[in-house]
Amino acid sequence: MSAKDPLVVFTPSGRRGRFPRATPLLEAARSLGVDLDTVCGGRGICGRCQVVPSYGEFPKHGIHATPSSLSDWNAVEERYRSKRGLADGRRLGCQAAALADIVVDVPPESQVHRQVVRKSADQRQLNLDVATRLRFVAVDEPDMHKPSSDTERLERALRDQWRIGQVRISHRLLPRLQETLRTGGWQVTCVVQEFAEGEPVRLLDVWPGYREEDLFGLAIDVGSTTIACHLTSLKDGQVRAATGIMNPQIRFGEDLMSRVSYAMMNEGGAEEMTQAVREALDSAVGSACAEAGIERRAIFESVLVGNPVMHHLLLGIDPVELGGAPFALAVGRPVELRAVHLGLSLHPEARAWLLPCVAGHVGADAAAVVLSEAPYRSESTTLVIDVGTNAEIVLGNRDRLLACSSPTGPAFEGAQISAGQRAAPGAIERVRIDPDTLEARFRVIGSKTWSDEPAFPESILATGVTGICGSGIIESVSEMRMAGIISEDGRIDGTLASRSTRIREDGRTHSYLLHAGDPSVLITQNDVRAIQLAKAALYAGARLLMDHLEIEEVDRVVLAGAFGAHISPLHAAVLGMIPDCRLENVVSVGNAAGTGARIALVNRGARREIESVVRSIEKIETAVEPRFQEHFVAAMAIPHKTASYPHLREHIDLPRSRTQPESRSRQRRRRRRA
Amino acid sequence: MSAKDPLVVFTPSGRRGRFPRATPLLEAARSLGVDLDTVCGGRGICGRCQVVPSYGEFPKHGIHATPSSLSDWNAVEERYRSKRGLADGRRLGCQAAALADIVVDVPPESQVHRQVVRKSADQRQLNLDVATRLRFVAVDEPDMHKPSSDTERLERALRDQWRIGQVRISHRLLPRLQETLRTGGWQVTCVVQEFAEGEPVRLLDVWPGYREEDLFGLAIDVGSTTIACHLTSLKDGQVRAATGIMNPQIRFGEDLMSRVSYAMMNEGGAEEMTQAVREALDSAVGSACAEAGIERRAIFESVLVGNPVMHHLLLGIDPVELGGAPFALAVGRPVELRAVHLGLSLHPEARAWLLPCVAGHVGADAAAVVLSEAPYRSESTTLVIDVGTNAEIVLGNRDRLLACSSPTGPAFEGAQISAGQRAAPGAIERVRIDPDTLEARFRVIGSKTWSDEPAFPESILATGVTGICGSGIIESVSEMRMAGIISEDGRIDGTLASRSTRIREDGRTHSYLLHAGDPSVLITQNDVRAIQLAKAALYAGARLLMDHLEIEEVDRVVLAGAFGAHISPLHAAVLGMIPDCRLENVVSVGNAAGTGARIALVNRGARREIESVVRSIEKIETAVEPRFQEHFVAAMAIPHKTASYPHLREHIDLPRSRTQPESRSRQRRRRRRA
Repeated sequence: MSAKDPLVVFTPSGRRGRFPRATPLLEAARSLGVDLDTVCGGRGICGRCQVVPSYGEFPKHGIHATPSSLSDWNAVEERYRSKRGLADGRRLGCQAAALADIVVDVPPESQVHRQVVRKSADQRQLNLDVATRLRFVAVDEPDMHKPSSDTERLERALRDQWRIGQVRISHRLLPRLQETLRTGGWQVTCVVQEFAEGEPVRLLDVWPGYREEDLFGLAIDVGSTTIACHLTSLKDGQVRAATGIMNPQIRFGEDLMSRVSYAMMNEGGAEEMTQAVREALDSAVGSACAEAGIERRAIFESVLVGNPVMHHLLLGIDPVELGGAPFALAVGRPVELRAVHLGLSLHPEARAWLLPCVAGHVGADAAAVVLSEAPYRSESTTLVIDVGTNAEIVLGNRDRLLACSSPTGPAFEGAQISAGQRAAPGAIERVRIDPDTLEARFRVIGSKTWSDEPAFPESILATGVTGICGSGIIESVSEMRMAGIISEDGRIDGTLASRSTRIREDGRTHSYLLHAGDPSVLITQNDVRAIQLAKAALYAGARLLMDHLEIEEVDRVVLAGAFGAHISPLHAAVLGMIPDCRLENVVSVGNAAGTGARIALVNRGARREIESVVRSIEKIETAVEPRFQEHFVAAMAIPHKTASYPHLREHIDLPRSRTQPESRSRQRRRRRRA
Repeated sequence: MSAKDPLVVFTPSGRRGRFPRATPLLEAARSLGVDLDTVCGGRGICGRCQVVPSYGEFPKHGIHATPSSLSDWNAVEERYRSKRGLADGRRLGCQAAALADIVVDVPPESQVHRQVVRKSADQRQLNLDVATRLRFVAVDEPDMHKPSSDTERLERALRDQWRIGQVRISHRLLPRLQETLRTGGWQVTCVVQEFAEGEPVRLLDVWPGYREEDLFGLAIDVGSTTIACHLTSLKDGQVRAATGIMNPQIRFGEDLMSRVSYAMMNEGGAEEMTQAVREALDSAVGSACAEAGIERRAIFESVLVGNPVMHHLLLGIDPVELGGAPFALAVGRPVELRAVHLGLSLHPEARAWLLPCVAGHVGADAAAVVLSEAPYRSESTTLVIDVGTNAEIVLGNRDRLLACSSPTGPAFEGAQISAGQRAAPGAIERVRIDPDTLEARFRVIGSKTWSDEPAFPESILATGVTGICGSGIIESVSEMRMAGIISEDGRIDGTLASRSTRIREDGRTHSYLLHAGDPSVLITQNDVRAIQLAKAALYAGARLLMDHLEIEEVDRVVLAGAFGAHISPLHAAVLGMIPDCRLENVVSVGNAAGTGARIALVNRGARREIESVVRSIEKIETAVEPRFQEHFVAAMAIPHKTASYPHLREHIDLPRSRTQPESRSRQRRRRRRA
């Protein structure tokens, strides 16, 4: 290429190069590594390679471009425009060729690796880089003078036209191959799957002629309680249907340990639970397909996450080893298999990919949270907590990452709470208590109106007030503490009954009436104790990891988990669930495990990334750490006795306690000074 | 290692090296790459690493060795001897350590790559190098302080104890893994399969504790007529059971073309034939297992060969494209899949490997013949002919290899011959005719007695004379030519009826009565014509390849194919089936396709070898070669008009023909001289 060859500059990438006159823009883009899509391989059929040439002066590039810098609008483009439409100013990159220096913009929809807008507040952007794509090829016809098999010629076409070096063709495709090639007039559209550059490419299907169909994938979060299934387009990364169903394993036990017990106590119990969850998964997929109006055969990939027990049961592995020390996983690394082996009826060649498990209590769901929140990319030290019956806790930064799990029990999910329930319409999710009057107001899921507003009764007509969910109970206990209804050690102050009828005697203890109705929602002394136990376990786990990192404070806290409304950072801090942190740096991200599954689904690089991150995580087993018990006991107080919470005190003054003991860290610091 | 370290010399390999004092011989062997077997990895359990130390003077090596050159006989060896026996003079390589210079012999049964004795006359030896082996490992127990999955620790054990870098574990094994490890007390025997060094190793099964079981493989030759199945030990390469059954596809058509027609004419016809052959295969496997007294689960590998139509039907591919030009294969390269996908019920993880097909008429059976006869290793130019309904013909040497197929029709297999039959007990397989008396004598399959010997009637009591098979008809026509009963152009000379009652009038032509009985065996004029057509086609194919190689003579001829007794080189030459060649260089090797399958089964390197050889073969399609028709017409004479047969004439004088035209090659040579 000489200096007189046309200079082609692509935006937004800024990549540039000189090419022989009349080089098509798609070819120039490919050789520069510019991200420009194509399915038909430059035949003017798919229209994926649309570009917007810019004309005028570009002093930065030393370019003066005019429409004659490109080859004339041609018959192929005209045909494409008349059949499928092409916006003014756009050209097909495979048809328009550079005749002189030119600046060419690649619009987002022509980029393979375009960004997907994520709905939740995000630190990082999600780039589309799917493993499964369409590749249109023209295959040589058989020639008696140079005998070769149809497979051989198809492989050659993929190599020559798509630079696919090694392709794996399932024996299941072979019986249909010859007819497809002939029906398509030796032109076929291939569905190929490539998990990493350089690895063999899997051929999933071959269709006659040129076909431009949407390919789909599933991101599935198999929770102990609910199964969430996101049917996602592999073309644009958007969710086309989301279905959530109950995990039918609940009939074998509400929580994980009771399911493990069921497997232990019943011959064939694990198989039963495997069967149940697989059937439920498949029916959730059916609903999602119906909702989106697509066929199951259009789904070529699925990514699944779940805690270790769910993960093992899904794979048909008896979870009994996870029920007792030393909590050994059967398999931790990512598992890839055909989806049909998990009972999923998708395209027959569709793959399933299970995220890696971190350790016996820290599952593929935690790995998905890590992928979604990416603490391993951050310089600041982040504490990521996925709240559930077990809390999975990850702490660290780009240099070092630690993980443990902590047995919080199910209180945060509304279980073992007198009026507790799962997060569902009708459940109280936000609570405010006036410290002067001790009056309460609240909001329920499904309504945006507070209970003290006039429109409230009408806004909840459909559900009424049915109970209280995790975030509601957390806010209740925090508000009660701030209002002085409960003391630092968690006791409901009975003497306040004289000030408010909401304080009720309840045998030898007292309760707080949050809502009088049918049912009434009371916060009992037992409820407060259950929350104290849960938050102490959560805090102790986080604190244990901080000890290992030898830090006294974290830079950021990320609360994940689908338990009602997003947790209020202030209330979490008041309760003492989390170590002290600037409140503006405490965020609540909802179902981050599901988000992580979606990321892994639409970005194949993310799968390799999380695999390597999980390998590098230091796993801490709380059961063998004596300090865990110490931290746990000390963290029962509200907030608790081992943290100073200077940041919290910037926001709020808690009612004075009878005793305000010195924190451990302060003791240490004082001793050091002495 | 210093010069004072003990020198260890291994025989027969001659490899030698110095090792620190007290290095076990197994370890020394491994680090020198000496071929010394082990399953238990040096724990004194398997006894595979037995060696024979040599004591005395070895001037060649500068060694004076005494029993004290090795560590003392130890308790592990004593236990092994008492439980399983150990011949005098033998030590366990993993227990005996070098204390001073020593010479150690590795007996054949301790070698992994030992040679297997092949029964037939062979040019090359068959080395054992199986892909599937047992590997005993001790796996670390789970440790809460360093959490890791059972899979991870198993993989680490295989890496550390067996240098297996990357292992693939099927999801089907995962559910059993944890219990197996615990039942085995964290010691397990792994069945691993490694097709090539450096490739990922497949884990096929895991058994608790140390188990030393025989692993088996199947070499299967799927012929149009018969299916031959060799159940082979992967330990020593010996055949433990051989079963042959009829191919049930015969009910859809006797020959290949009629089966292709059946698939064309009948909806679902191909599936029907696929189903039939798979069921037959599986039942043949069942018989072989019963004969050898082993379980199907003990079979971990299978290698299959067959012509293209059989190959495609086995894989569930409609063979219709093979029935007409351009005869395109669906797939030519080797196909590897789980055996269960071919309907074979073996070990659930057992693999099936189909040899590559060469071209649309030259199948995996021909590839197996090439592997067995290895013309690609030879300096001399070899013509390999696999005789069947189509003859597959391969010609060449280490520099260049060509292949074609020739439509001989089924005459050589006894079909379309008046008294013809398949090679089976009772069929006439050898024939001699006295040129003076025109009297015949013959032998039938199942008896070694000639028909003119007194013991003959008794020797065939079980079967009688039932007909004539391929080799019998070839010898008959050759003998008739040598006795002057038929002329060069193939006509039976009716005037001889006056000399012998065996010459019978038969409408407008004549026949030769080979055997009077029930049934009588006559060689009719039509039979002679059928053989003439068949041998002309065979010769024309061979001659076409010779034209491509630009040679007038071949160094060796190998006749393969299971058609009765091995073909007599002299008779083949008289008939003009083959080009002229020194008769001592014409060999008949029987079912070389089956042999090739066995080689590929027990030697994984052979699979890579034949894959690459087949890729390099130049495929010639006779249908597009005008010279093929010319050669065919010219080759109808007996022997025929285009070859001079100087070598044949060293052995025999054929009765003079009325005209003896000049051969084409002579014409050419004369013209060149002129």
